[in-house]
Amino acid sequence: MRRVGALLFPGFELLDLFGPLEMLGVLKDDFQLKLVAERPGPVASSQGVAANADTTIGQGAGFDIILVPGGAGTRREVDNNAILDWIARSSETAEYSLSVCTGSALFARAGILDGHRATTNKAAFAWVAEQGPRVEWVRQARWVESATFLTSSGVSAGMDMTLGVIALMHGRETAEKVATWTEYTWHSDKDDDPFARVHGLV
Amino acid sequence: MRRVGALLFPGFELLDLFGPLEMLGVLKDDFQLKLVAERPGPVASSQGVAANADTTIGQGAGFDIILVPGGAGTRREVDNNAILDWIARSSETAEYSLSVCTGSALFARAGILDGHRATTNKAAFAWVAEQGPRVEWVRQARWVESATFLTSSGVSAGMDMTLGVIALMHGRETAEKVATWTEYTWHSDKDDDPFARVHGLV
Repeated sequence: MRRVGALLFPGFELLDLFGPLEMLGVLKDDFQLKLVAERPGPVASSQGVAANADTTIGQGAGFDIILVPGGAGTRREVDNNAILDWIARSSETAEYSLSVCTGSALFARAGILDGHRATTNKAAFAWVAEQGPRVEWVRQARWVESATFLTSSGVSAGMDMTLGVIALMHGRETAEKVATWTEYTWHSDKDDDPFARVHGLV
Repeated sequence: MRRVGALLFPGFELLDLFGPLEMLGVLKDDFQLKLVAERPGPVASSQGVAANADTTIGQGAGFDIILVPGGAGTRREVDNNAILDWIARSSETAEYSLSVCTGSALFARAGILDGHRATTNKAAFAWVAEQGPRVEWVRQARWVESATFLTSSGVSAGMDMTLGVIALMHGRETAEKVATWTEYTWHSDKDDDPFARVHGLV
């Protein structure tokens, strides 16, 4: 059983968080999900509705997997040292650290992507790239794997990346079973990114 | 501005709820999202993590759109008259009533689908169909539109249906913009269902 710590902050993007948690959560015997925030209780998403934090960053790291969503709130959280410290500490011991969309801006500001390849939301690419001048930003990728860091493109790409990390841990057949159960057409080629072109990045 | 009431109950499926709310929530000037439950506060999903209800069913109906997710909890909620009454009352005045996955079992038990075509999760098809003997259950469809009722296939199909309802209200171009912004490859043909075959329904 791996423990998954998913970060909440005001203005997180709903699907960045709950798409990946759906895919992991289908495998109830393999993953235990926790929502982590600065304080316990409701945290409003970028879309207004709130999720409920059951764990705080002060209660420590120790997760096998961390998941950091993007969303409008990342513009403020890039200056939040409490959150950045939690990311840096948690990623040291995590088997995998996952970011979705502009969540990679928080990874970059936590310093954990220096020297690594990474990607992000295609509509906010320039701003995210500024947060990590020593990161090798990939303009065209559904998601990027570099050591223990997996960073995905915008919003929906998080689900594809999460199925990819399930395949790394439990085999491709298990990832495909999860996709079938959720009636999801898995975009399983991490290098094929149809949206980089749409957003003028290539 | 349309008001969207999304139903929470213990054991709701995360992506059934938050996939559609992501798509609607991108259009901040057009849709206001509310999470509705029997009591205010946290409601645990089928995957364990909780969303936070900001409105109760006792505070009434009056939503322009209602959204009812599926999930393991529907097995209990089909006998919950408070929830079924809210669905029946809300759907009378709603412009559109949306269900995802086994959420259509709750629609069926609320009696609102009698004489209508509808679909559901492909892995739980037989159980759902038993909940509505006077419903014309469609075995192969990504989603089904019948009068003001839109019912989708399992989990991920809710996002496709929601883009479909955005297209009905705001035009196809707006739905495509939402899909592009969320970097989502919209499965826009409601009659094309690749999962009915996988689950042996056709």
